[in-house]
Amino acid sequence: MSDPLERFNAALASASPALFAALSPLGRRIYFPADIPFQAAEARGKEINATIGQITDGAGGALVPLSLARGLAALGEGERNRALLYSPVEGFADLRRAWARWQSREMGREMPATTLPFVTAGLTHGLSLVADLFGGEGRTVLIPAPFWGNYRQCFGARTGARVVPVPSFTAEGFDAEPLAGALAALPRDEPAVVVLNLPSNPSGYSLAAAERSRLGEALGAAASERPLVVVCDDAYAGLVFEPEVPRASLFWDLATAHPNLVAVKVDGATKELSFFGGRLGFLTFALAADSDAAPAIESKLKGLLRAGLGSPIATTQVLALAALESPTIEAEVEAIRALLAERYRALRAALSGVDPGHLRPLPFNSGCFALVELPAGLDPERARQHLLATQSTGLVAVAPRYLRIAHCSVAAGVLPELVRRLALGVAQLA
Amino acid sequence: MSDPLERFNAALASASPALFAALSPLGRRIYFPADIPFQAAEARGKEINATIGQITDGAGGALVPLSLARGLAALGEGERNRALLYSPVEGFADLRRAWARWQSREMGREMPATTLPFVTAGLTHGLSLVADLFGGEGRTVLIPAPFWGNYRQCFGARTGARVVPVPSFTAEGFDAEPLAGALAALPRDEPAVVVLNLPSNPSGYSLAAAERSRLGEALGAAASERPLVVVCDDAYAGLVFEPEVPRASLFWDLATAHPNLVAVKVDGATKELSFFGGRLGFLTFALAADSDAAPAIESKLKGLLRAGLGSPIATTQVLALAALESPTIEAEVEAIRALLAERYRALRAALSGVDPGHLRPLPFNSGCFALVELPAGLDPERARQHLLATQSTGLVAVAPRYLRIAHCSVAAGVLPELVRRLALGVAQLA
Repeated sequence: MSDPLERFNAALASASPALFAALSPLGRRIYFPADIPFQAAEARGKEINATIGQITDGAGGALVPLSLARGLAALGEGERNRALLYSPVEGFADLRRAWARWQSREMGREMPATTLPFVTAGLTHGLSLVADLFGGEGRTVLIPAPFWGNYRQCFGARTGARVVPVPSFTAEGFDAEPLAGALAALPRDEPAVVVLNLPSNPSGYSLAAAERSRLGEALGAAASERPLVVVCDDAYAGLVFEPEVPRASLFWDLATAHPNLVAVKVDGATKELSFFGGRLGFLTFALAADSDAAPAIESKLKGLLRAGLGSPIATTQVLALAALESPTIEAEVEAIRALLAERYRALRAALSGVDPGHLRPLPFNSGCFALVELPAGLDPERARQHLLATQSTGLVAVAPRYLRIAHCSVAAGVLPELVRRLALGVAQLA
Repeated sequence: MSDPLERFNAALASASPALFAALSPLGRRIYFPADIPFQAAEARGKEINATIGQITDGAGGALVPLSLARGLAALGEGERNRALLYSPVEGFADLRRAWARWQSREMGREMPATTLPFVTAGLTHGLSLVADLFGGEGRTVLIPAPFWGNYRQCFGARTGARVVPVPSFTAEGFDAEPLAGALAALPRDEPAVVVLNLPSNPSGYSLAAAERSRLGEALGAAASERPLVVVCDDAYAGLVFEPEVPRASLFWDLATAHPNLVAVKVDGATKELSFFGGRLGFLTFALAADSDAAPAIESKLKGLLRAGLGSPIATTQVLALAALESPTIEAEVEAIRALLAERYRALRAALSGVDPGHLRPLPFNSGCFALVELPAGLDPERARQHLLATQSTGLVAVAPRYLRIAHCSVAAGVLPELVRRLALGVAQLA
């Protein structure tokens, strides 16, 4: 048991047998080796530190071309140094704590025990680390549909897992029964993965209180039959536009739902701070930060991150931390949410006037998108090409019969014209 | 042949049968699907573009919290927008062209035909994309030793490839014969991968002209027996401190060495612009940019990058581009090289005075590091711990019997003291 990998695997198997059972072969063999970053961490604070191959002024300061440093002129010298040199593999500790505070700001109750958020290079990177941990050949990944197409690449193409779309977003809202049924149909005791993206991309839907309870029950019941990893892709966290729709992530409920349910939260600055170009995400596990399991899962995440990326992005961590520490950040983010709410309402109003025989919007109340259902027999890819060619309007085709409207990137005043062109283009094809 | 994957695979098989034969199962099945970034690219320039889920002002400008934008204050508005919004999956076109110019600046002759550099999230990420393309179960990856330990994680732990260290850096310099022998011992026609890291981490050695010719010959000969992928990890490109040692990457010679030799260049801003925290790397293939194979390999790289990371980092691409476009950048980078050369000379001078019975430096002439060989029987990990505990000095242990000194992060004036402590600590253990 002196082998660190065996020790970490034993800690996970003991704290969460479900999590251990659900690990992929890669997830079982990976951990953070006592390699250079490990040795460099041990050398911090020594009088002479000649461990890391980064070019410094000899006193820990960055030594960079002025032409590069200039672009970070608004940062103080200490933060500029941090932005230019390597980040720890797990991310900057102060940023991780700041993000945990940010996650908790809308919780009206005590937070369940979780790990300190682990820094990733954006949400897709967080998802790909989860896919490496829990995916692989022979693993079933169930995803409420319609869903974001990149889940197929991330879980399926990369790791060989079997991605199963489960029709869930309907004309009435969210139906948990197909997911419950798909889980029940798997061989008993076989681990499974569910990916929840709420608010949803592409549907722009967040669950009503009753739907949320029903989904939580269904997942809890499924966890009594098998190790169940539930990945909450909270990319659009907080972007909810109707007062009666719960805002907090389902992750907080699932964290304590069932010992066999492994809840993982994927979130980040991409949408929550509107920092798309920064590639800053976080992974949070429902494992107590002071348990033996927390350093074990962190070692595995660090092993994967080190092998695939080296270290996360220092520059954008520093920029995001400065933003999170600003006393006005909550008001600034709320102002962006309010502006998106205005676009959301403009789109709702415009869609309420279209002929439901040609275009039927699916329910939407949150996030960045809305889906419209096309008439039976009209291929969405054909409709997309037609709108590009004849209406100079770009939307995204979503199989089998939807177009996705990203209202987050269109001014409210333009949305009625977008809907007019969409209706016209579809009418020409119908 | 209307299937894009089949078309791309056919283009690669036709342009470079060796490259196609060396693809991993993942490398064969991956390509960039006609997903959101693809559709968004088609919608660029349309009057209304509601394709991408990024929050903008409705006219393509970023809409971010002021607390975040403040950190990029020195950039003009257009560049600040680019820094905050999504990058194209392949990276910004102007940065890719700027990097190709940067690569060519020290070539005294015509450049061989290559792809436009593909943007990655740092060099390790570039290596991991190459490992995904050409690694996997059953594949042999030969690496001149001592080598950077993370190659094991990147190629071995992640993809299951068999990583074989080939003792090559010796007391005399670089010996190509063990690598030639290891290649010749593999089953004929079986594809193989070689990773070259020159200037080397950890040895700080670059090949002399005669060694370089011999290595090139050996690789060319091996390529007549099998598809041979040669990955040039040029992390430390340009950091050469002796005038007679060739500076240009071996990649440029290998690009045209043999039709069965697939040369791949991994490089980036990490060390070349001293931008460690930015995670900006590039992948360049020795395939003509105007061939059918270039878009085919780019589609595969985009598919892998999209599945694992989403998109590369816009923020640090913009900062690096601004630096590369500055008229003073070459002089600024040369000033850093000159400062490192001073540290290199200080370390050489200090090491020349140590007792060769206790410490034997391996040849070094470039890069960020030097290796010292410990007396037989002294475990480097034990020596490292002893130096931390008794000399407050941090070095990195390298199996089987070396310590690595990162002179790049220690002031020249401190290096004699570092060597004094190192010699003292080792003498205490010997």
